[in-house]
Amino acid sequence: MRATFMYGPGDVRVENVPGPTIVEPTDAIVRITLACVCGSDLHPYRSMDKTDQGVPMGHEFLGVVEDTGSDVRGPRRGDFVVSPFAFADNTCPICRDGFHTACPHGGWYGAGGVGGAQAEAVRVPQADGTLVKIPTDVDTALLPSLLALSDVYLTGYHAAHMGRVEPGKTVTVIGDGAVGLSAVLASRRMGAEKIILMGRHASRTDLGREWGATDVVAERGEEGVATVMELTGGEGSHVVLEAVGLMPAYEQAYGIVRPGGIISRVGVPQYEQAPVGFGSLFGKNAQLAGGPAPVRAYLEPALEDVLAGRIDPGRVFDAEVALDEVADAYRAMDERSRLKVLVRP
Amino acid sequence: MRATFMYGPGDVRVENVPGPTIVEPTDAIVRITLACVCGSDLHPYRSMDKTDQGVPMGHEFLGVVEDTGSDVRGPRRGDFVVSPFAFADNTCPICRDGFHTACPHGGWYGAGGVGGAQAEAVRVPQADGTLVKIPTDVDTALLPSLLALSDVYLTGYHAAHMGRVEPGKTVTVIGDGAVGLSAVLASRRMGAEKIILMGRHASRTDLGREWGATDVVAERGEEGVATVMELTGGEGSHVVLEAVGLMPAYEQAYGIVRPGGIISRVGVPQYEQAPVGFGSLFGKNAQLAGGPAPVRAYLEPALEDVLAGRIDPGRVFDAEVALDEVADAYRAMDERSRLKVLVRP
Repeated sequence: MRATFMYGPGDVRVENVPGPTIVEPTDAIVRITLACVCGSDLHPYRSMDKTDQGVPMGHEFLGVVEDTGSDVRGPRRGDFVVSPFAFADNTCPICRDGFHTACPHGGWYGAGGVGGAQAEAVRVPQADGTLVKIPTDVDTALLPSLLALSDVYLTGYHAAHMGRVEPGKTVTVIGDGAVGLSAVLASRRMGAEKIILMGRHASRTDLGREWGATDVVAERGEEGVATVMELTGGEGSHVVLEAVGLMPAYEQAYGIVRPGGIISRVGVPQYEQAPVGFGSLFGKNAQLAGGPAPVRAYLEPALEDVLAGRIDPGRVFDAEVALDEVADAYRAMDERSRLKVLVRP
Repeated sequence: MRATFMYGPGDVRVENVPGPTIVEPTDAIVRITLACVCGSDLHPYRSMDKTDQGVPMGHEFLGVVEDTGSDVRGPRRGDFVVSPFAFADNTCPICRDGFHTACPHGGWYGAGGVGGAQAEAVRVPQADGTLVKIPTDVDTALLPSLLALSDVYLTGYHAAHMGRVEPGKTVTVIGDGAVGLSAVLASRRMGAEKIILMGRHASRTDLGREWGATDVVAERGEEGVATVMELTGGEGSHVVLEAVGLMPAYEQAYGIVRPGGIISRVGVPQYEQAPVGFGSLFGKNAQLAGGPAPVRAYLEPALEDVLAGRIDPGRVFDAEVALDEVADAYRAMDERSRLKVLVRP
């Protein structure tokens, strides 16, 4: 089958490799119907160390079950399914807490002998806990929105959930990428009163306004902090959703968070150390939350919302490529000429 | 009057200075009945830069109102009062949120022209918002517990409150100082199921056990982390209350926190940068909370608890000195021969 591998910065290749097979009795094999490129795929695209062994890419997909291991009880051959970007057993105490991305039996696509989803097929470990069925007669116009449940929308949702967004709260979203826009949509669904979107790409912030942003702030750094403070009567934002992952975004976040407020991060941090002392978080009792979204915890109700037409998170996709052209998708997203690109095997 | 000043590491002096006077119409002057030395006073005692202008010390006190400014409506001359360690207006939006230590009209004793409380008298800005009355006929045996409401007990309480301690939760307290022990007592009051106290001073951890610690872990660092992980079935602690403020305590905290759990800090951080990335907080969705305790938010119900005999937080005091001997109190606490020392002017 054909599958996508990354060998170094800007070096994305589609190669012919043996198709996946059942390894554990809890595995399923899924033939990919629709996949996409993630903002987090751009981090290695920009800065990974070169390697002779390509890294399998892709972790968001819809597909059809082709085979299941002997212990799999739920998904059956022919089922149409969506997968969270991380697999998990969905039964252990950590999953029951709602933190599936830390499941001791879980893991990540593209690592530890599990392939990526920018491919014709993929092996899904912990298939019973991971895969969620979609009606086979679903309107194909809904497929992008269903695919968005694999990661991007529910990552934005996780930011808002961990930020404890609720009616009456002011929420500031840092980043107008697909996750930031999804965080706007989720915050609106949770009843936020005022939603400030920090971003400077008009085509993106326009979608943010449609999805509920009440204010757009194009300034960054100290200027951006000053503008948000002004918009919040000098008190700061109850909740800050940080959907970038770079230090300047983190610095903006603690600059604008209200005393006692919450910074919720879902941009994968490209730093390990950051300010947390008296001058940043501690002095004003600011809280820090967030991490890899436990998509599985939120998937079923969100699926109902998409099927019922209550949300349309698939609008973040603004282009589509065939699998052989996946390198073009990376390039377009890296150049920011495209927001998020579908990949059809 | 006599008042305490610090001039450099280990250099604490009691000096004669002019008594405080009303500066703002919202001020009160309080004659100190009972004060004490705080664990946080030991940070400058160990590491402050030498100065020719002494820094006024002390921020915890009970006392009698001696004079009030023309705008003060509540406290009257002769009232017996307790003060939070920070003053605040108790009416602004930030105070109404419950974060008085970030009140835009608030501040700290011993800074900005306001004296310290290890003295015969002190000026209290924002007296209406700050001071809380105590019945004048109160049993004097309760005074240490009432003084503990000024900072130490309610700082431990704040840690537990921000850590969202509740029935069924496992709580680990790092630090067997007076704040750590108070955090044990508060966690027990909030219904924590299992309370692990990390500390190695038997006389202190014994009080911790009396106050509700179910387990005591003397090991530190990696060994300490391994022991707590074992005590929590390999899953980690739902809540970690960090009552030290040094980097090794922070590292222990993220080592033992359960995925999705909360680290709540009340030890004033002696660092600004710390690990918060994928390998520490982000990867397991650990949350970071805490800061200077908004004691005023919790003071009135805690006062009722002390008066009714439901809590006895004054047991952290294990010695008393006269004001002229305050340097001995610092020395004893620095050497850890005393847990927390009362100062009687």
